[in-house]
Amino acid sequence: MNQPQKNPQPWLLTPGPINTSMVVKQAMLHDWGSWDGDFRALTKAVCDQLISFVDDQDAFVCVPVQGSGTFAVEATLGTLIPRQGKALVLVNGAYGQRMTKILDYMARDYVVLDKGDYEPPRGAEVAAILEQDRGITHVLLVHCETSSGILNPVAEIAEVVEQHGRGLIIDSMSAFGAIDIHSSRVRFDAIISSANKCFEGVPGFGFALIRKTVLQHCATHAHSLSLDLYDQWQYLEKTGQWRFTPPTHVVAAFIQALKEHQQEGGVAGRFVRYRRNQQRLVAGMRQLGFKTLLADEWLSPIIVTFFAPGHTNFSFQRFYDLLKARHYIIYPGKLTQAESFRLGCIGQLFDEQIDGLLEAVSAVLDEMQIDDGNPNP
Amino acid sequence: MNQPQKNPQPWLLTPGPINTSMVVKQAMLHDWGSWDGDFRALTKAVCDQLISFVDDQDAFVCVPVQGSGTFAVEATLGTLIPRQGKALVLVNGAYGQRMTKILDYMARDYVVLDKGDYEPPRGAEVAAILEQDRGITHVLLVHCETSSGILNPVAEIAEVVEQHGRGLIIDSMSAFGAIDIHSSRVRFDAIISSANKCFEGVPGFGFALIRKTVLQHCATHAHSLSLDLYDQWQYLEKTGQWRFTPPTHVVAAFIQALKEHQQEGGVAGRFVRYRRNQQRLVAGMRQLGFKTLLADEWLSPIIVTFFAPGHTNFSFQRFYDLLKARHYIIYPGKLTQAESFRLGCIGQLFDEQIDGLLEAVSAVLDEMQIDDGNPNP
Ligand SMILES: Cc1ncc(COP(=O)(O)O)c(C=O)c1O
Ligand SMILES: Cc1ncc(COP(=O)(O)O)c(C=O)c1O
Repeated sequence: MNQPQKNPQPWLLTPGPINTSMVVKQAMLHDWGSWDGDFRALTKAVCDQLISFVDDQDAFVCVPVQGSGTFAVEATLGTLIPRQGKALVLVNGAYGQRMTKILDYMARDYVVLDKGDYEPPRGAEVAAILEQDRGITHVLLVHCETSSGILNPVAEIAEVVEQHGRGLIIDSMSAFGAIDIHSSRVRFDAIISSANKCFEGVPGFGFALIRKTVLQHCATHAHSLSLDLYDQWQYLEKTGQWRFTPPTHVVAAFIQALKEHQQEGGVAGRFVRYRRNQQRLVAGMRQLGFKTLLADEWLSPIIVTFFAPGHTNFSFQRFYDLLKARHYIIYPGKLTQAESFRLGCIGQLFDEQIDGLLEAVSAVLDEMQIDDGNPNP
Repeated sequence: MNQPQKNPQPWLLTPGPINTSMVVKQAMLHDWGSWDGDFRALTKAVCDQLISFVDDQDAFVCVPVQGSGTFAVEATLGTLIPRQGKALVLVNGAYGQRMTKILDYMARDYVVLDKGDYEPPRGAEVAAILEQDRGITHVLLVHCETSSGILNPVAEIAEVVEQHGRGLIIDSMSAFGAIDIHSSRVRFDAIISSANKCFEGVPGFGFALIRKTVLQHCATHAHSLSLDLYDQWQYLEKTGQWRFTPPTHVVAAFIQALKEHQQEGGVAGRFVRYRRNQQRLVAGMRQLGFKTLLADEWLSPIIVTFFAPGHTNFSFQRFYDLLKARHYIIYPGKLTQAESFRLGCIGQLFDEQIDGLLEAVSAVLDEMQIDDGNPNP
């Protein structure tokens, strides 16, 4: 059969899946019975630890769900927003847009505040919409909008949503675990993330941390059996098991990933390393002439968008291939207007990899005969 | 943190997740970029090989989907059955019942032929229903109903469904890869399975093999973005990528699992080993006095249901714990009436493990002071 050659492990400068530690991967060298007590203990350990990041009041529950992050987002929206509810979706990139698509499928009513590719939604704008439209029951916000890398002003928006007595659902896929968001400081009904971003696990499941008093009333909302988080929660409570076969190896890897997260100093420790990666990366890329899409104020320590050089010799595919030949995998841009690419700062990346990447970018520009990363030639 | 002790690898006598080979698990010791060409090649290799099991006419496409097997079943039903369609669900156990639950969530119309816990649906009955009810567009069948272990008469039912010009959707979760079902011999619109059953991969995704001429007309059916197999197919065709983050490590393990499947002689080779496991298991258990739920004619080489001994000393939990102390993990029964338990024959199990299990069961009966596995004391 046509198995592709396995290359030496490349460095993934991407928003996930990211580089995981070898010990995390080695945790997958064991087969678990999903019905067995040992695996139930794994599930409980995962949930307890995830809850501890947002809550010390026993106010939240953790509901894991099989599949990718999008599955967790769809599951949370479908479970929390009643059929007669109405959402305000704050859009400034692909993942905000994806939430509107999910609502279309589910035939839930919604309005959009669309800020384009790189402007953040602000509290005052959200307040104005909520005052005007009393029918809105939920506000949907992306924490770090990974398509530009912008870190949206969560606290500011949460405050406004709370003042207006609506529910806030946060897609924190690419930020949770590296950017603090404790429920004692930011009020939300649910926050969603997955195994393979800032916790540095391998992909295969997502999860939502949901306010118990909210979830209790969601028995009849879901549009899908597989994505019904109320049902998943109830079953977990009763049996300690996932309703359907969990990705056992991925969960075992996640336990190890959580351990390493804690060893690094938890959310604060991880934030420090990622921010260091980002600052080193941005400084180095600017020295090579590249320009960031965002002003420094909105840059996240997760992923950074750079404009493609305006030089006629530049082609993203060739840039990608030449960097890959040096074992660095980068990510395409997602802007609707300008040509761009993205470099991630998360995963098992340290000074050495950032410096190595910068050297590789410099060498590749030479090879492509581009004198400068400046987007305006 | 509270990490449960990792026990030595137990033998999983379960319907999945099952024991995988160490080489399969070792294929997960590498991180893949999901956007990268190397990973796209993995995905293509998986899909091409899966199609080859049912089709040599370029009539089928393979659509993988993140999540567990239930996600793949729900995705297939939601994508293939139009909102105005109507299903006939052939139920003789938990997985047939689960399909009705999925249809309830999606608000699709259906009727049920319910055969109870262990009787197979027969062609003549299905024909009678289809003749009577012209509104039925699709028939839903479970290939091996894992809750009893019964192997349903697929060919007989497929023939009737074809004669009546309806679509047949087969949940072959626990049979595909070990029981031949080529589309040149059995006509169906779609067949569904997952990574972690007879192919002996690790859990994390499912897939459907769908007739292209059917899927082409399914653009507007799905009730869920995450579970829209038409959209997933279109995106795969265009980009070679999954729409949302795939479980990269699980896919890499599956490539290795497919290789080992081929080395064992493909579907035929695997069937031989599983049937041998099952025959050895059933003969040995009968010698210990246990009785199978099913007559030999309906026993599958996948999993076998045994009645619990009628002896007052018997408790499933204690039986389970004592077997687990000997490193054998068994599975609870799923019958609505009688007390029972199940023993799986699939995964990396060979004569040695079956014999070891039989010895363990014998020793455990002694320890529980049960003289005989006979259900009628
Ligand atoms: C903010 C955000 N939301 C949702 C997703 C979707 O996650 P997945 O690709 O795992 O479905 C991503 C993935 O990068 C993301 O960054
Ligand atoms: C016939 C059948 N259908 C569906 C499923 C559900 O699969 P999962 O548990 O992966 O969701 C199973 C699982 O054993 C099965 O045997």
